[in-house]
Amino acid sequence: MTSIPPRETLTFPPGPAALITPYLPPNNTNTTTTTSSSTRAYPYVTLTYAHSLDASISLGPGIRTALSGPESKAMTHFLRAHHDAILVGAGTAVADDPGLNSRLAAAVAADADGGGGGRVKQPRPVVLDPRGRWAVHAGSKVVELAREGSGLGPLVLVDTGTVMEEGRRRVLEAVGGRYIALEARGERGRFEWADVLSVLKQEGLGSVMIEGGGEVINSLLAPPGNAFVDSVIVTIAPTWLGQGGVVVSPVRSTGVDGQPVAPARLTDVTWCPLGEDVVLCGRILR
Amino acid sequence: MTSIPPRETLTFPPGPAALITPYLPPNNTNTTTTTSSSTRAYPYVTLTYAHSLDASISLGPGIRTALSGPESKAMTHFLRAHHDAILVGAGTAVADDPGLNSRLAAAVAADADGGGGGRVKQPRPVVLDPRGRWAVHAGSKVVELAREGSGLGPLVLVDTGTVMEEGRRRVLEAVGGRYIALEARGERGRFEWADVLSVLKQEGLGSVMIEGGGEVINSLLAPPGNAFVDSVIVTIAPTWLGQGGVVVSPVRSTGVDGQPVAPARLTDVTWCPLGEDVVLCGRILR
Repeated sequence: MTSIPPRETLTFPPGPAALITPYLPPNNTNTTTTTSSSTRAYPYVTLTYAHSLDASISLGPGIRTALSGPESKAMTHFLRAHHDAILVGAGTAVADDPGLNSRLAAAVAADADGGGGGRVKQPRPVVLDPRGRWAVHAGSKVVELAREGSGLGPLVLVDTGTVMEEGRRRVLEAVGGRYIALEARGERGRFEWADVLSVLKQEGLGSVMIEGGGEVINSLLAPPGNAFVDSVIVTIAPTWLGQGGVVVSPVRSTGVDGQPVAPARLTDVTWCPLGEDVVLCGRILR
Repeated sequence: MTSIPPRETLTFPPGPAALITPYLPPNNTNTTTTTSSSTRAYPYVTLTYAHSLDASISLGPGIRTALSGPESKAMTHFLRAHHDAILVGAGTAVADDPGLNSRLAAAVAADADGGGGGRVKQPRPVVLDPRGRWAVHAGSKVVELAREGSGLGPLVLVDTGTVMEEGRRRVLEAVGGRYIALEARGERGRFEWADVLSVLKQEGLGSVMIEGGGEVINSLLAPPGNAFVDSVIVTIAPTWLGQGGVVVSPVRSTGVDGQPVAPARLTDVTWCPLGEDVVLCGRILR
């Protein structure tokens, strides 16, 4: 291999890991073993994100905002190592240039080992980009990491009507990623979740961790999107970002009495203090 | 005494009480003993409220919204018994018709005992009502409770220019409450916090628990209001109320670089899971 400077690895302590594990995909769908999840129509979906007390994930669209502490960062990489895929919207890919790999020490070790049969390994990055907004290039972080062997090449879902530049296509394919054409038949030119999750299943991805951004999260918290969500893991930081941030708050409907109806509630709830933050795990109450 | 049907009393378990106690007023300012707090210019201020994951305290203005579980309700009454006063804005008084007493068993027992020297007793209700919007009457819950001896008569702060009806005045005075005229010299016809807290101090109230509503809370989280806050106790319920609720999110300023600045952060943080909810205790980072 080439001499790549080692990147920082992270460890996640066993105490909080034990509290969070019940909310992870029930079998390790990353192994080649046949698991019960292979009989599901869609991958296991974990929705996970961090926000302030006033439910903002960032100070504003496109502003990267440090929110949660180092322990929460380690948790993110722990979660990533336990899913087959990580999904973000194009807005997040454009604004954050995210790495979308796992720096969990165990995942990094599995890479070095060739990734064969390890309990954890790198997840497949997935970007929802119906209109082809994300100008992926050789210097994009996710591409760099895949080139180094510290992550996988991304799958980028684009609308069937969107023609992608040949240069971008080559960048993806050089690191084992590719564009996948999918009809964006949802509202306002978006994909339907059933379509997206079917594609991931066809790609052999048994579990997906959905990380953001705001639009993606909100569409998965309100009906009908929330029917696809198996577990929710939210980190809350003890800070206020103030009015005008990018807020996680799903749309709501109106009841027969004309009064607004709360769109979702969690059940089977665990709160896990982690550094200065708290991690909330739960399942959406049906 | 007259035969009043007993009201439900509440108990708060010692485990969470021990976690929360460091955030309560440092001395029991309810006793007649001289305490260090008597040297403060203002009462000890605890800001406390409950909201959803999307930071809504209610589905909409004037809509009473059940949010937190029974354990959190018991905590509210525990907190109330440990403060000299409870303060709400006029909007909350109008919308919720709140009782503003403590049903903590120990506080109720102290009442029966005459309240002399007990560690806990009933707090003094305070309503901020510069424009005289709250039409207090003999059937208002806070008045009923005071008449029964299960709470104290409210102090209602009105702007010096607001003329109050004689009927309302008699209702308050019959239960040991009264109107207090105070110049509303803040923005948009509001009181200044320094003025309000000075009045409470002059009334012999060494500590105040501020419960709501949204406007009051937001003004105490952002500068300059947050300089008056000694501790913050927030209950978070694992539910989403959705877009359009009454949201706790302070206004923010803009930094020298033109970017928005987060208005506040907590330090000295404790997260205390309580039933399905979590209670966050902290102090505003200066």
